[in-house]
Amino acid sequence: MPTEFEIIRKYFDRPAGSARLGVGDDAALLVPRAGMELAASTDLLLEGRHFARGADPRRLGHKSLAVNLSDMAAMGATPRWAMLAIALPEANEGWLAAFAEGWFALAARHRTELIGGDTTRGPLAICITILGEVPAGQALLRSGARPGDDLWVSGELGGAALALSHPEIDAAVRRLDAPEPRVALGERLRGVANSAIDVSDGFVQDLGHVLARSGCGARVEYSKLPRSAAFEQLRDPALERRCVLGGGDDYELVFSAPSAERSRIEALVPALGVALTRVGAIVAGESRLDLLDAAGRPMVLERGFDHFAT
Amino acid sequence: MPTEFEIIRKYFDRPAGSARLGVGDDAALLVPRAGMELAASTDLLLEGRHFARGADPRRLGHKSLAVNLSDMAAMGATPRWAMLAIALPEANEGWLAAFAEGWFALAARHRTELIGGDTTRGPLAICITILGEVPAGQALLRSGARPGDDLWVSGELGGAALALSHPEIDAAVRRLDAPEPRVALGERLRGVANSAIDVSDGFVQDLGHVLARSGCGARVEYSKLPRSAAFEQLRDPALERRCVLGGGDDYELVFSAPSAERSRIEALVPALGVALTRVGAIVAGESRLDLLDAAGRPMVLERGFDHFAT
Repeated sequence: MPTEFEIIRKYFDRPAGSARLGVGDDAALLVPRAGMELAASTDLLLEGRHFARGADPRRLGHKSLAVNLSDMAAMGATPRWAMLAIALPEANEGWLAAFAEGWFALAARHRTELIGGDTTRGPLAICITILGEVPAGQALLRSGARPGDDLWVSGELGGAALALSHPEIDAAVRRLDAPEPRVALGERLRGVANSAIDVSDGFVQDLGHVLARSGCGARVEYSKLPRSAAFEQLRDPALERRCVLGGGDDYELVFSAPSAERSRIEALVPALGVALTRVGAIVAGESRLDLLDAAGRPMVLERGFDHFAT
Repeated sequence: MPTEFEIIRKYFDRPAGSARLGVGDDAALLVPRAGMELAASTDLLLEGRHFARGADPRRLGHKSLAVNLSDMAAMGATPRWAMLAIALPEANEGWLAAFAEGWFALAARHRTELIGGDTTRGPLAICITILGEVPAGQALLRSGARPGDDLWVSGELGGAALALSHPEIDAAVRRLDAPEPRVALGERLRGVANSAIDVSDGFVQDLGHVLARSGCGARVEYSKLPRSAAFEQLRDPALERRCVLGGGDDYELVFSAPSAERSRIEALVPALGVALTRVGAIVAGESRLDLLDAAGRPMVLERGFDHFAT
């Protein structure tokens, strides 16, 4: 059985690239470019909680990095470097090769270098730290929403949650297993959007963080929320509502921007090949969310997923 | 039961200090000072593997951060910022308060700010990422050892491993539960030492990383290796050898420096209140380790702890 050090060398020790020092010392060394702030985020994913037991390792490699890239997207930051700490029940080389393949394929597309990490034996757990750059003062914060802002959503919502109850719907399963972090969109929203967050816990809950940090409210038209085409055939409005409003793991961006920016934002749709939908507006009122049905009546809110509340 | 967000706010949301943005957004934002490189490291600690089930939460808070601060010490970096990702089996407020107390007490002594993290429910696991600063080009690397360098060890070895078989020896238990990362020593070794590493897996194994990266060998006099006073009473030379050579978790620094630096290094002993012992020398020869007993005869090496090899 390979040792920890052989595993690191074989699967995870790639040339350092732009980092001054990569994998293999007590720490990596790096320098953000002049005028840049460093954005730093970390996520811990556990088997049986954040992904199913026996999950495909290639998809897991993709998804574990995608979740972190999405945090960079939500800040308007350009991902640069990542560290991977992983606990493995055994040193299964086939599993590791597939995991590394999924990880590095996505990393290459986003020019993100693996610069360090940790491996240990234990129940499968993956902790990724990502570091990115954003021009000083231009990060998209949860606290930046202002009354009068348009509220926008990228792509579509609810697909990842739908896959949990309908694993026969391929498009939904792809949303769950292979989310595409909206990195390019986040970068293009610098200087355009006032606030942003990514949908990891569910639209209502994640929007709630923006409203709480910004000291604002929002008015959202439920019928305008972009959603997976699969819901149309299913004709299960309760499931649809739960998935679209409360489903996590979509990794779309929810952002607010002054109405004067509408044409710039709409121009991003063909430029990036991603749908961008105006779903409502930021309004005055501490954390107040008015969710309206197609007839303009207030809807009863579903609660988002909270890792300790449930 | 508190939600994930209430836990974060209550125990871990401290003012950001020198970071541009701390806990509570999709990422933290920070800027290294001019002329500084950023050192980044991550460690994943699991219950039952890296610490005992039911470990005292205050000590665990201390130790989980100490392990990461030690990586900064081994680079000669000044710790600045940390992120804490933690999986908890339940939101036990007493446990969390004690863990946070141990964590923040050590963090305050090293002026390290908590700037982000992640909490989830699951078997107890702690993943800390630490970020520090080191003047450009001055980091202490594993690859810098040169034949002719003196080889030094800080403090004493073997105490943490001794605690595993002799939990009645308080001094050893303190070494295991409450290691003191040699941060100030690492900082003072910038421009003095040629190479450094911290002893996390055992002296022989960790020195081996330095030799491999530096393309050198070493000659070490076993009798000179500084060790816990408790070994003298125990009179168990086999246990002593296993602990001193192969015991992990001591978090002392092993470093090499030109012999011209001896007086500067010896002056650090009273300045920092830490023992520094010259235990041998770096020699030519790829990864060759000559370990000599008191009579100058070669000793048979014990193998260090490897998380997958055992």
